[in-house]
Amino acid sequence: MPIPDRALSDALRLAEALFARLREASLDPPGVTRASYGEGEAAAHAIMADAARELGLEVASDAIGTLRMVLPGTDRDLPAIAIGSHLDSVPHGGNYDGAAGVVLGLATAAALIAAGRRPRRDLLVLGIRAEEMCWFPAHYLGSRALFGLLPRQAPDTLRRVDTGRTLAQHMAEQGLDPAPIREGRPLLDAGRLACFLEPHIEQGPVLVEEALPIGIVTGIRGSLRYPQASAHGQHAHAGAVPRAFRRDAAMAGVALIAALDARWAMLEAGGADLVCTTGILATDPAHHTSTKVPGLLRFSLDIRSIDADLLGEIDHWLKTEALRIGAARGVDFDFGPPTHAAPARMDAGLRALLMREAVTAGVPAKEMASGAGHDCATFAGAGVPSAMLFLRNRNGSHNPDEALDMPDVAAGLAVLARAVAALLDQA
Amino acid sequence: MPIPDRALSDALRLAEALFARLREASLDPPGVTRASYGEGEAAAHAIMADAARELGLEVASDAIGTLRMVLPGTDRDLPAIAIGSHLDSVPHGGNYDGAAGVVLGLATAAALIAAGRRPRRDLLVLGIRAEEMCWFPAHYLGSRALFGLLPRQAPDTLRRVDTGRTLAQHMAEQGLDPAPIREGRPLLDAGRLACFLEPHIEQGPVLVEEALPIGIVTGIRGSLRYPQASAHGQHAHAGAVPRAFRRDAAMAGVALIAALDARWAMLEAGGADLVCTTGILATDPAHHTSTKVPGLLRFSLDIRSIDADLLGEIDHWLKTEALRIGAARGVDFDFGPPTHAAPARMDAGLRALLMREAVTAGVPAKEMASGAGHDCATFAGAGVPSAMLFLRNRNGSHNPDEALDMPDVAAGLAVLARAVAALLDQA
Repeated sequence: MPIPDRALSDALRLAEALFARLREASLDPPGVTRASYGEGEAAAHAIMADAARELGLEVASDAIGTLRMVLPGTDRDLPAIAIGSHLDSVPHGGNYDGAAGVVLGLATAAALIAAGRRPRRDLLVLGIRAEEMCWFPAHYLGSRALFGLLPRQAPDTLRRVDTGRTLAQHMAEQGLDPAPIREGRPLLDAGRLACFLEPHIEQGPVLVEEALPIGIVTGIRGSLRYPQASAHGQHAHAGAVPRAFRRDAAMAGVALIAALDARWAMLEAGGADLVCTTGILATDPAHHTSTKVPGLLRFSLDIRSIDADLLGEIDHWLKTEALRIGAARGVDFDFGPPTHAAPARMDAGLRALLMREAVTAGVPAKEMASGAGHDCATFAGAGVPSAMLFLRNRNGSHNPDEALDMPDVAAGLAVLARAVAALLDQA
Repeated sequence: MPIPDRALSDALRLAEALFARLREASLDPPGVTRASYGEGEAAAHAIMADAARELGLEVASDAIGTLRMVLPGTDRDLPAIAIGSHLDSVPHGGNYDGAAGVVLGLATAAALIAAGRRPRRDLLVLGIRAEEMCWFPAHYLGSRALFGLLPRQAPDTLRRVDTGRTLAQHMAEQGLDPAPIREGRPLLDAGRLACFLEPHIEQGPVLVEEALPIGIVTGIRGSLRYPQASAHGQHAHAGAVPRAFRRDAAMAGVALIAALDARWAMLEAGGADLVCTTGILATDPAHHTSTKVPGLLRFSLDIRSIDADLLGEIDHWLKTEALRIGAARGVDFDFGPPTHAAPARMDAGLRALLMREAVTAGVPAKEMASGAGHDCATFAGAGVPSAMLFLRNRNGSHNPDEALDMPDVAAGLAVLARAVAALLDQA
């Protein structure tokens, strides 16, 4: 459903202005800082709320501080079309991770208004709280709280990493109320949402490398993680103990990780969606030296795929391989406590709609998995048909060098506004 | 040349008593501590000197504190037969590493005396200083000083790790004189030694595993070491960056180390003498997390062989392999400064003599490489025909659980005393 170019270019100017105001309000060189339930996040919420009021939207903040900006439809009983993302950032982060989704939501509303559209359904633009795990150690804090999914003790047990104060204390300082979280009470009814769309910068290099302005997300990868795995052998003299008598924890760990790497290469060549990372690899600093066979190796494993079955298969393979290598080398592997996150599949109808509108708008796009987690996974998990639009971004995310160019915002907006216009008028 | 059983059993009782006195004088639970140029080492020297005097040997200590105990021969112009080892230990170490060689030297002298032998050549039993690198960061400090081979600035630049005081200060506290080191002046003339024999506990498990009381050393392994190697890639998001776009320092380092391990297994299967150790393996503690692709991996390599050519070949292979893996994975390897120690070949005639006497004495023995460094390498390097006799020892070395059983001391003494008796009477 076409939106006049002029309406889109007005909306794009708004987006550009909003990014500039957000940056200015949360500047913390190098980069910006918008701490969850902190000052920078509050400033971002105020900027977005002001802009929404200027556009004539209904603006409200709920008890936990979620910003809700509504372009009212003609039939307010129909479930709404929601767009949004989070407004917090990592310390000294970039200006776009999270914020781009809220800015594009408001820009979409602005484009529809400028085009003179009177949508049938409400368009709900959401500014979600507290998505960055670096502040409070909980995944998707703000979106899970919105659906009443956070553990009830969370306000009193979660402490912000930089201040040591609890979530409840930080919420109170912002004039907000942790009571709904303590009661497990949802603040948003999944049944009142027809769908959720989350525009977000791509955090990897795929769109840059493939010269595509946007990506349409197939799913958010689930993960199988062993953050505290270890191999246990026996310290020994590096010169005096022959190969056959060693119980070398490092060589055994290296053998296991190299085998995982080889398996990953093979599965990927066969078309599987998979990424494997050993972020931490460490012999024991209290005992290691270059002239001692290490008796201990600590390592982490982070394995992600949009295919839950594949994660299960790799888990089984890992355990079998560790037993085989351990037996051959006199080393015991201890994987430690695992964490699992289920993959979130994006809605097939929404993905098809976004791809169709990209083709019609002449915007090159590809389908791709999201390797990072996003609030969108909470919405999908709550049963809301969900989709994500990735915007090309240079230099990765969570750093001051995030770079989202305005032509790519324009490309994303053209696709999003067309898709949303179509969704808003569905019966 | 047979030595009466009774003479050997008298000498064995002396050895047992000396081990007990050494332990008592340097007890530092768990284990013993005989710091280089420290109290425990001084006590050990006093015990050995007293025992030598009781045996009627000529006893002297040179300027740097080397203990020289001589059973005089009938022709004092002939080069002497020397036996010895060091008397220092690691902190909380075992009672036998080093000390066993001096004790066996004195026991050999005692056996010859008890047998009523009047040797032709002098038998020189040496108590060498400061071999354990954990105190002063220099290899073979005491034996290199003895031959004038230590850097002249060493007394004033080497500091003891535990006290921070210089070698010169510690020597002065023991009433010793660093002047010969500062002048590069040898205290022992290699030309005045017919040979050097160093009995030592085996620091690996080979003799225990193969149920043999003694080993005859073929050579002291040389080493090729890169204590501070590293792989440099780029930190990236563990979920969002696909395999093809990663520059994963950990996976690249793991690939290199796994390749080295595979090459080692292959070369060893082909009969090569080789041990390879990665004692240190560490992603960057300041930046690593389990959810980040590591941009940096630090690792050490310690590769030893009695074959200098093989060490050179592996060095070349390592560099080539690192270039190949680095190019394929977008990672740069930096090996950092290497250290090389040349292998020391033991004298073929002495090895054959020891093996012959072992066969005659009915003591099962095998030829084997020494993976650890020993003062004997200094003597061999100075042109003194040298050999080592390994004694079976449980639980490795440099720990309180070193275990040398008296029957194995008896076996070593039987072989050593016969060999020395033969050497002493050579024209």
